[in-house]
Amino acid sequence: MPELNYIPSLKYEDGKLVILDQTRLPGDIVWLPIPDLATACEAIVSLRVRGAPAIGVMAGLSAIVAARSGLPVATLTTDRWAAGFREITATLRTTRPTAVNLFYAMDRLDRCLAGLSAAAAGPQQMLDALEADALKIFREDTELCDAIGRHGASLIPVGATVLTHCNTGSLATAGRGTALGAIYTAYFEENKGIKVINTETRPLLQGARLTSFELVHAGIPCTLITDSMAAQVMKEGRVDLIMVGADRIARNGDSANKIGTLGLAVLAKHFGIPFYILAPSTTIDVAVESGEGIVIEQRRPDEVRAFGARSTAPDRVDVYNPAFDVAPAELISAIVTEKGVFRGPYDFA
Amino acid sequence: MPELNYIPSLKYEDGKLVILDQTRLPGDIVWLPIPDLATACEAIVSLRVRGAPAIGVMAGLSAIVAARSGLPVATLTTDRWAAGFREITATLRTTRPTAVNLFYAMDRLDRCLAGLSAAAAGPQQMLDALEADALKIFREDTELCDAIGRHGASLIPVGATVLTHCNTGSLATAGRGTALGAIYTAYFEENKGIKVINTETRPLLQGARLTSFELVHAGIPCTLITDSMAAQVMKEGRVDLIMVGADRIARNGDSANKIGTLGLAVLAKHFGIPFYILAPSTTIDVAVESGEGIVIEQRRPDEVRAFGARSTAPDRVDVYNPAFDVAPAELISAIVTEKGVFRGPYDFA
Repeated sequence: MPELNYIPSLKYEDGKLVILDQTRLPGDIVWLPIPDLATACEAIVSLRVRGAPAIGVMAGLSAIVAARSGLPVATLTTDRWAAGFREITATLRTTRPTAVNLFYAMDRLDRCLAGLSAAAAGPQQMLDALEADALKIFREDTELCDAIGRHGASLIPVGATVLTHCNTGSLATAGRGTALGAIYTAYFEENKGIKVINTETRPLLQGARLTSFELVHAGIPCTLITDSMAAQVMKEGRVDLIMVGADRIARNGDSANKIGTLGLAVLAKHFGIPFYILAPSTTIDVAVESGEGIVIEQRRPDEVRAFGARSTAPDRVDVYNPAFDVAPAELISAIVTEKGVFRGPYDFA
Repeated sequence: MPELNYIPSLKYEDGKLVILDQTRLPGDIVWLPIPDLATACEAIVSLRVRGAPAIGVMAGLSAIVAARSGLPVATLTTDRWAAGFREITATLRTTRPTAVNLFYAMDRLDRCLAGLSAAAAGPQQMLDALEADALKIFREDTELCDAIGRHGASLIPVGATVLTHCNTGSLATAGRGTALGAIYTAYFEENKGIKVINTETRPLLQGARLTSFELVHAGIPCTLITDSMAAQVMKEGRVDLIMVGADRIARNGDSANKIGTLGLAVLAKHFGIPFYILAPSTTIDVAVESGEGIVIEQRRPDEVRAFGARSTAPDRVDVYNPAFDVAPAELISAIVTEKGVFRGPYDFA
């Protein structure tokens, strides 16, 4: 059995935090030390770390290294230390305004701190307990990925080729990922001899830049295609199943994910290929009845008009740039969370 | 009525040939004079002119300017002049080995020359007759586009939004184009107030670079999307019909075209949108029974691994890069040629 081999988005050892600088991928593997608050904030703002779960875990651990570097436990009073820590979490909250996992991690540390203050703990005790909590957030995300990976892998036949879209792996989470996590599990822990076809995922190319990098690094056989080639590889019988992540899942199972997902779901139905969504159960928003209630973010035209810094279209041309689309529940063969494999009709109430 | 306004791929006036340098688009509009054989060959090899019909017409006119610059009619004997002209067409044939229209144009001029030799014409008479023939090839391509445009435009309702893929306009032909030609006709000559959504068309971005340029230049309202956004714009009801070109059409109507066409055809069926193929009747290959008989060219992996000169994926990653795919006849609402509008079941025998 090959050894489980994915490249982590971050490492925390002996109180030291390092992250894999994703802005340097796929060209260079650069491990960036995060010794203080300023470095942590810059890393999040500059997308050196990305993916909501990875950002949350990284911010939690960043608060600990920031406290260790900036708040001396020997000289500060307990009140001053606690006030300093609250400033750290408040600063980290400002880095990515819409990252849910970031706020979740900061809320948890703030609550933990409040409990410690109420229990009259001293600065060193506070630091130790907060570090334990930040590590727990890390471990929970890893375990969530493990569970999604295990359930997802049960859907992958021996020798299958899985088509995936965007990046849903170890670079997006603090663990092995969601859709890509199932692929790691099937390949490394169930020895299924599978292969992957992954789309480049325009406009931001998370598939080409990140998923290809992860798979090449892990040694899993993979083939990169442009988004426009998905129909052809399905028609040629090269795809046995499709696994993608989700940003938000409505109560009825309609699933919002990276732009291009809806097209893949329609093609999968046409060519008779199973289409699976994999995401943590926290992605399910029971307050949203159906996909119609999911607002689709529009992004900057320059993402479509250009490729990185290189312009590819007339400056004046109008652009439509929805960040995601919604695959309707009837096109989804199963939704996989850490709790198991769910098949339609979905009702996540 | 707005005036017909498309940017031509080439101009021939008073015996002078200039081409629009497509390698400089969409950033710069550079008209490149073609005064001699070397410049003509470099322009074709370097893709300054592209699109099979445009290459054919341009090569024909290039043979004339090359003869005028390199074969003095006053001093050469008839035999020497004719031998020199045959060398010119032979040289032009070597520029793009698979361009059918190029060989067609060279064959025609060589036949014309043979006829002139048989009729004992002198060098000046030969040059004049060959120029008339090269201009006839030019005019025929323009008229072919006009006819396809007229038949295609009859399928476009007033106020419609047409989705198109790749580049099928004036930059690909010596006239107004095929699918884009129908759009020009509907907009300028039938005043239908239409709009266009065009895909960027990875990997080579002919949609972003060339179609967006043509439409912006012509003043036709257009919106650029990535290939992965086609499903979403269809789902949102933004697309009334789809019009694309074809590289080869089988006897049963199965149509090979730029990669991504099959996916658009499947999506069109799913969302109930008419899907049209527009191409000259010479594209129909009656010797090919169905799409299964059409061999799909595989292109260089670097086109997918990179974006122009910029690498976007790990160097080692495997790539699948089919240049085109085949939309099956049952997904095609109609096939439009210069001869009219044909609906299935197709039998082009």
